[in-house]
Amino acid sequence: MTNITTDICIVGAGPVGLFAVFEAGLLKMRCHVVDALPAVGGQLSEIYPKKPIYDIPGYPEILAGDLVKNLEQQIAPFHPTFTLGERVEHLAKLDDGSFTVTTVDGTEIACKVVVIAGGLGSFEPRKPAIENLEKFEGRGVTYMVREPELFRDKRVVLAGGGDSALDWAIYLASLCKELTLVHRGTTFRGAPESAAKVTSMAEEDHIKLILKSNVTEVQGDDELRSVTVMVDNTTPYEIEADYFIPLFGLVPKLGPLENWGLELDKNAIVVNTEDYSTNIPGVYAIGDINTYPGKLKLILCGFHEAALMAQSAYNILNPGKKFILKYTTVNGIQELQSL
Amino acid sequence: MTNITTDICIVGAGPVGLFAVFEAGLLKMRCHVVDALPAVGGQLSEIYPKKPIYDIPGYPEILAGDLVKNLEQQIAPFHPTFTLGERVEHLAKLDDGSFTVTTVDGTEIACKVVVIAGGLGSFEPRKPAIENLEKFEGRGVTYMVREPELFRDKRVVLAGGGDSALDWAIYLASLCKELTLVHRGTTFRGAPESAAKVTSMAEEDHIKLILKSNVTEVQGDDELRSVTVMVDNTTPYEIEADYFIPLFGLVPKLGPLENWGLELDKNAIVVNTEDYSTNIPGVYAIGDINTYPGKLKLILCGFHEAALMAQSAYNILNPGKKFILKYTTVNGIQELQSL
Repeated sequence: MTNITTDICIVGAGPVGLFAVFEAGLLKMRCHVVDALPAVGGQLSEIYPKKPIYDIPGYPEILAGDLVKNLEQQIAPFHPTFTLGERVEHLAKLDDGSFTVTTVDGTEIACKVVVIAGGLGSFEPRKPAIENLEKFEGRGVTYMVREPELFRDKRVVLAGGGDSALDWAIYLASLCKELTLVHRGTTFRGAPESAAKVTSMAEEDHIKLILKSNVTEVQGDDELRSVTVMVDNTTPYEIEADYFIPLFGLVPKLGPLENWGLELDKNAIVVNTEDYSTNIPGVYAIGDINTYPGKLKLILCGFHEAALMAQSAYNILNPGKKFILKYTTVNGIQELQSL
Repeated sequence: MTNITTDICIVGAGPVGLFAVFEAGLLKMRCHVVDALPAVGGQLSEIYPKKPIYDIPGYPEILAGDLVKNLEQQIAPFHPTFTLGERVEHLAKLDDGSFTVTTVDGTEIACKVVVIAGGLGSFEPRKPAIENLEKFEGRGVTYMVREPELFRDKRVVLAGGGDSALDWAIYLASLCKELTLVHRGTTFRGAPESAAKVTSMAEEDHIKLILKSNVTEVQGDDELRSVTVMVDNTTPYEIEADYFIPLFGLVPKLGPLENWGLELDKNAIVVNTEDYSTNIPGVYAIGDINTYPGKLKLILCGFHEAALMAQSAYNILNPGKKFILKYTTVNGIQELQSL
């Protein structure tokens, strides 16, 4: 078990979480950043590192991955520390007003201020609305393929029409005893080459392809035994199956943050725009994860929120001490970084 | 007289005013930008173009002048138009809810929305507290040297201890019949070389240097005739003078904006943080010129304010039309710029 003590624990290492380190650093506050992903940058690194962004002020165009690199360089003078690849789980407020944030792996971060910069939250599989589906989770129903060997010589039913469903259908067909792909439409959303490949594999009987259909029921005892497919909304149809893998993409969820006692509005944390504080004193929420009247989910808005948050956090960490805003252009970063 | 018709009139071509063109452009709104300065960039171009800035998110360091250039490039696809070197003077709200903004030179801009991004306002000379001083403005009292030839063979009294006072003392000494420099201290704030030069010119009787003194009175009839100098707070002393030029630096003033009916708090315009609107519907204020609880005078905050303003302005320009926020990384700027 790892124990960390810091001024501010930032939950989320996306662009806004990273820039919060800078704004805190200018006010001589130390930060520790936690993220469930194994690298910094959030969605920018995970989903679209090679895509250009056009709406970062002062950058007519910048690759998402380059923006992350620049932010890392910008905060380096303030020596932030990181716990990556661990999702935060619990928040405890201690009697002295400080906090302990605990991750799923038991890392404990003691801090005076918590800043949630969790973006859209953690991504979880989108589950189809099938009765008893969750009862068979871990007993034949799974939402992602982690270890393909698990499916060797098994009867597997995949559902979905995107890249993930097509790619795994192609890959698993050679391993499985029987691979069935159920798709509600007649055309696929995935890459045309993958769709063509699946179609030709179906013609050669390597894949059982059932179009215009949905899986509507799952059956079994302790383990999954079969699924029922409704063809074209009329004819039910039962298929023996050891595994059923719905691949309908990921949806963002707040996850464990939902149990922290924060005031929520749909999937977002309600904040006060004066300092982006939440209903829990000492806990702030910045970036896409918060909501307030006029909120826009733009990176540049999160940068502003980080700056105002830092001023407010300073007052918690330095009660009674007055801070004079200094412009970095006057003295540069050097004189500010003597932490 | 020039007449311009546009969607949004942006008052102020500093970094925030420029970025407002981008945010408006993404929503297909055209902008015309007015600034009293002859070039875009505001203070960044006027005061510190070669100074590095460290707190623009994603730029570990950038020269102020380069940030302006990048912003110009970023907004170029939206073809903004400019009136530079003209200060805005009047705001008129028409019966149909639209506005006419008029400059000192009579340029009229017809628009549906006005965005004030005026930074610290326009800079005006800091005037010493001397009775009747304003009575002699234009009759011997002036606060800046526009045309040095005006002072040829005249008796001129300069006051001040900064670079401006030193530089003009050195320059005008060779033109004037008599040049007196009055300074309240014994050392100068200006460049040491200039101070040394003034001191040596005083020793050689090219400049009359009166230290530890203030000008306390001005006398004359229609024109200035003399000023009274209080030496070391004890001995009054009268000097004949055709011109008195106090050079005590510039102070920011809202100027004509003060008469627009805007709700003010000290030198700033009060706004609603939901969309940075002022008390006049259709008029917004963004950047250093506005104020609200938690306000920080940072460029990055102005960028955020510009984004929220644009969403609100869209509703004025497109009543009843629903706008769906698009991320630039999905489609790029190209498809958005067909104005």
